[in-house]
Amino acid sequence: MREPRPFTAYRLKDLLSDIAEHVRPAFGKGKVADYIPELAKVDASKFGMAVATLDGAEVAVGDADEPFSLQSITKLFALELALNRGGDEIWTRVGKEPSGTPFNHLAILEAERGAPRNPFVNAGALTVTDYLMARVPDVSTLVLEYIRTCAGGITGGLDETVAASEMATAYQNRAIANILRVHNNLTHAPDAVVDAYCRQCAIAATVRDLARAALPLAMDGFSIHSGETVLAQRNVRRVNAVMMTCGMYDSTGSFAYRVGLPAKSGVGGGIVAIAPGQGAIAVWSPELDRAGNSLVGTIALEIFAQNTRWSIL
Amino acid sequence: MREPRPFTAYRLKDLLSDIAEHVRPAFGKGKVADYIPELAKVDASKFGMAVATLDGAEVAVGDADEPFSLQSITKLFALELALNRGGDEIWTRVGKEPSGTPFNHLAILEAERGAPRNPFVNAGALTVTDYLMARVPDVSTLVLEYIRTCAGGITGGLDETVAASEMATAYQNRAIANILRVHNNLTHAPDAVVDAYCRQCAIAATVRDLARAALPLAMDGFSIHSGETVLAQRNVRRVNAVMMTCGMYDSTGSFAYRVGLPAKSGVGGGIVAIAPGQGAIAVWSPELDRAGNSLVGTIALEIFAQNTRWSIL
Amino acid sequence: MREPRPFTAYRLKDLLSDIAEHVRPAFGKGKVADYIPELAKVDASKFGMAVATLDGAEVAVGDADEPFSLQSITKLFALELALNRGGDEIWTRVGKEPSGTPFNHLAILEAERGAPRNPFVNAGALTVTDYLMARVPDVSTLVLEYIRTCAGGITGGLDETVAASEMATAYQNRAIANILRVHNNLTHAPDAVVDAYCRQCAIAATVRDLARAALPLAMDGFSIHSGETVLAQRNVRRVNAVMMTCGMYDSTGSFAYRVGLPAKSGVGGGIVAIAPGQGAIAVWSPELDRAGNSLVGTIALEIFAQNTRWSIL
Amino acid sequence: MREPRPFTAYRLKDLLSDIAEHVRPAFGKGKVADYIPELAKVDASKFGMAVATLDGAEVAVGDADEPFSLQSITKLFALELALNRGGDEIWTRVGKEPSGTPFNHLAILEAERGAPRNPFVNAGALTVTDYLMARVPDVSTLVLEYIRTCAGGITGGLDETVAASEMATAYQNRAIANILRVHNNLTHAPDAVVDAYCRQCAIAATVRDLARAALPLAMDGFSIHSGETVLAQRNVRRVNAVMMTCGMYDSTGSFAYRVGLPAKSGVGGGIVAIAPGQGAIAVWSPELDRAGNSLVGTIALEIFAQNTRWSIL
Repeated sequence: MREPRPFTAYRLKDLLSDIAEHVRPAFGKGKVADYIPELAKVDASKFGMAVATLDGAEVAVGDADEPFSLQSITKLFALELALNRGGDEIWTRVGKEPSGTPFNHLAILEAERGAPRNPFVNAGALTVTDYLMARVPDVSTLVLEYIRTCAGGITGGLDETVAASEMATAYQNRAIANILRVHNNLTHAPDAVVDAYCRQCAIAATVRDLARAALPLAMDGFSIHSGETVLAQRNVRRVNAVMMTCGMYDSTGSFAYRVGLPAKSGVGGGIVAIAPGQGAIAVWSPELDRAGNSLVGTIALEIFAQNTRWSIL
Repeated sequence: MREPRPFTAYRLKDLLSDIAEHVRPAFGKGKVADYIPELAKVDASKFGMAVATLDGAEVAVGDADEPFSLQSITKLFALELALNRGGDEIWTRVGKEPSGTPFNHLAILEAERGAPRNPFVNAGALTVTDYLMARVPDVSTLVLEYIRTCAGGITGGLDETVAASEMATAYQNRAIANILRVHNNLTHAPDAVVDAYCRQCAIAATVRDLARAALPLAMDGFSIHSGETVLAQRNVRRVNAVMMTCGMYDSTGSFAYRVGLPAKSGVGGGIVAIAPGQGAIAVWSPELDRAGNSLVGTIALEIFAQNTRWSIL
Repeated sequence: MREPRPFTAYRLKDLLSDIAEHVRPAFGKGKVADYIPELAKVDASKFGMAVATLDGAEVAVGDADEPFSLQSITKLFALELALNRGGDEIWTRVGKEPSGTPFNHLAILEAERGAPRNPFVNAGALTVTDYLMARVPDVSTLVLEYIRTCAGGITGGLDETVAASEMATAYQNRAIANILRVHNNLTHAPDAVVDAYCRQCAIAATVRDLARAALPLAMDGFSIHSGETVLAQRNVRRVNAVMMTCGMYDSTGSFAYRVGLPAKSGVGGGIVAIAPGQGAIAVWSPELDRAGNSLVGTIALEIFAQNTRWSIL
Repeated sequence: MREPRPFTAYRLKDLLSDIAEHVRPAFGKGKVADYIPELAKVDASKFGMAVATLDGAEVAVGDADEPFSLQSITKLFALELALNRGGDEIWTRVGKEPSGTPFNHLAILEAERGAPRNPFVNAGALTVTDYLMARVPDVSTLVLEYIRTCAGGITGGLDETVAASEMATAYQNRAIANILRVHNNLTHAPDAVVDAYCRQCAIAATVRDLARAALPLAMDGFSIHSGETVLAQRNVRRVNAVMMTCGMYDSTGSFAYRVGLPAKSGVGGGIVAIAPGQGAIAVWSPELDRAGNSLVGTIALEIFAQNTRWSIL
């Protein structure tokens, strides 16, 4: 019977180096996100990958110490915070089903009367932000501090230039927020929610930071870096479930097919994946495929899952 | 760290008995499928559950020896057969993404020009049937024999009365098949494909049969009952991925949240779930929830996953 | 104040000749319908136009004595017959609003639970056919005889070759009919309704026949050719209203903008337009624009309306 | 043959009085618009009707001297101004087809990539406002002055309280404006366009004002009140065409069926209808039917059209 392979830090390091070599021919086949002007300036040739394991080991390769814009990956931490703050209450306002449409589609939101399909479509993430705004004065700081706690300190921080660039061009999100407001699924002014959300998305971190920050999702919610349980075990399983069925935009099914791990991506080119009971993997490469996921990052995770047998399927 | 619990057959049997007790209050809260007249006649109080494990053990409780109509669960075996026969070729005609809409929605099929989102929506299943029709004269016999092989013999068989009842009322499927034909995604006459599909859906089996037939999906494709590999390992992971992201109609996300196992359900009230490296679980209870999944069956699997820690998330 | 110009038959004849000259450069810019194989064989260079006026005069130009396939234009006469037979009853099953989508769109039909938007989209026309099937054994004969009565005899008839060609390829209409049946908006078997509808569409007539057959719609329902009232005055206004708002597929607004007359087109390249209190105009030219209306026919009617000042807007 | 009846002012006055009597039982069956708080305060029992004819006569009944909020009726005058200012240029940004969906539906706007179906859906009206903003500093003043010119002076004016109330609750329009901006179909900031549009909608006038202001649309564009041509004849026909096919939200077909005149309604309870070559009719009654049109106003126009035979169909 196929079993996950026992991987020492030393062998993982070799694997990451091999991966960095193997993905090289794929550069140039994707497209850096350009709808946020500031993101379009990123060097397309960047590649970093890091793995944090349950024994506290951490291996990394490439541009693993350079912060990049987390973007939609912050939705993952915002969801954890909403569950920490209010338990199942958030599910009265947001569903947990895949949307079956590209990540910013309005039709389904209108058809379902302002009830977002899940917390990882933009409509759902704006609702989560609105939910947190009722509890803290500054959502982006809350999310940043939570990432810092989970990871035991991070290199990155909030990138004000990216935040400003996003706010200036957030027409699609402003449309969504206004639809949510029409259906009374926002308690704050749409513009305020969009601004808070843009700031949250503008958090930057390295793949090392990200792998460490996500590690509790592979460990029943315990953070070895902060020495505390940051998320209840039942919520860990649920967050992983949402990632597994909704985490990769309209390529969630293909990603499960190729990689077989719960994961969340962002248009900054980052992906974080969870191998329950094994570890957390973060990868960064700015070029995106047509679904909006890191093209090289997905290939890297596919090779990683094949070699480690950490796939859960 | 949370680990799957080692379960002897003896303790599993106790767990199934406990579950049969616990689900009792939920009877009467769902609704037996009535759009196929013959299915509406089923006794709503039926409940059977069976688990087949890697060591060949098998435990069962309740109406575990009574055949029921597999319906959409046959889509799982038809997909395995399509992969066995043609490898990745089927993916040129069917996607692998969740549909985000109820299981028989036409709009998305029209919008995506006859390309079904995945093999488990009816449009996709009809396409798989059409694909198999080009290879064998009788798809329902092929599927039935494959189930028999995987399970090492089954109690059930093709229920001609159910098949006739379905064919007589298959207006929705005939609409779908004609749309597929408009977009040249069927090679046979729409009516012939619908008839073949209705016969395939009318295969009946017990939960014992079903758990054994699905066990190879928990064992890298090896059937301990037939002594052979019935599905290549890479295809096992892929079938599990499609189940994980598309297997439970428009409750796939909720099911992952509550149970955390790849699974496929049918409107006959059956669900089969896979715990990779552990075993296969089949449950049958005819009352359905609003998404069309067995209401009591889902609760039973939720309790099962909590107690065994076989959830993969 | 602009008034309709008094037109003698002599001057109308000159106008039609001028029009035939003016439209010449537009040939070759459209596309003959090819989804019905038999229709694709039509000579694209055909052009005929006829006007029937209240005083019984009739002028024509070009291929005015050659029958062509009326196709969707028969929906007009079928609607008249449904109103004649059951008054307002048909409106309990079909709406009277423009559909806002191409003429064979399924999504809106599904969203509105099998209630067709109007009698001129295919779903509505199939419902009208089904409605007439409950009253007569052979709908196509009924429609043909009604056209003959209104026109005082016609040159054309039912083209069995076209009918057979349509039935063989009517996948889209079979899809629609099955959706209607799912929502209990058909009382006959979907296939029988589609076959009856295909036969109805295969009626052929000349532009002379067509202008005469439609003349009662310009004369409060009186047919000068049969000497009887064929449609009650209130229904005349209502049929004209449906033509005005729904008669030209998804170019109904543009046609009102350019021509300003109630009209109905068919994919055979025919258009019939009504100038209440003045006359009826029929034109035929097989090449279609992107909306499925005769490209040259529309231009011809535009010139006609400008010169006669018969536009009602 | 049915002909429009010659109506002296004296007989029209009697007809209006009869209508005011006849519509009485219909009060209480509709619902005053409540989505704009300030509009919800209107006295539901108000009823006024006025007719302006080509000879300069004007008759009125009921609350004909009380200004009411024109709302979407201003879209008519804004369209006239856009045509006056830029000719056909506006049609490169807005279509002329009926939308087939309720008046503020977003799905179709998204599906058609930010191209509004016509100038009378909110998306189209916002685009027209944006178009005028590029030409004048204050669109609402431009529209108000145009109405004043056409009518030869009006009683009403811009209601700042209503304008403020609309701006405060314009979430749906802000969503639409942001979608338009995403697709580069707005040249100004979405919020600025929405604010300008809300001010335009807040123009108030009496039914007398409104009938006079619309009279040029029945007279080839000539205003007898200002003594000048306010709209080119070809644009008159085109504006009437857009009213005929798109003027009454999702009841445009039913309205053509019942009344048979080009018309435009507003959620303030006003409707203005054009009888080309005869006159203009304005009616006001705040209770709306389910499509958002004045319920009593529609009945009044139906009786009016039947008695005058001014219907154009």
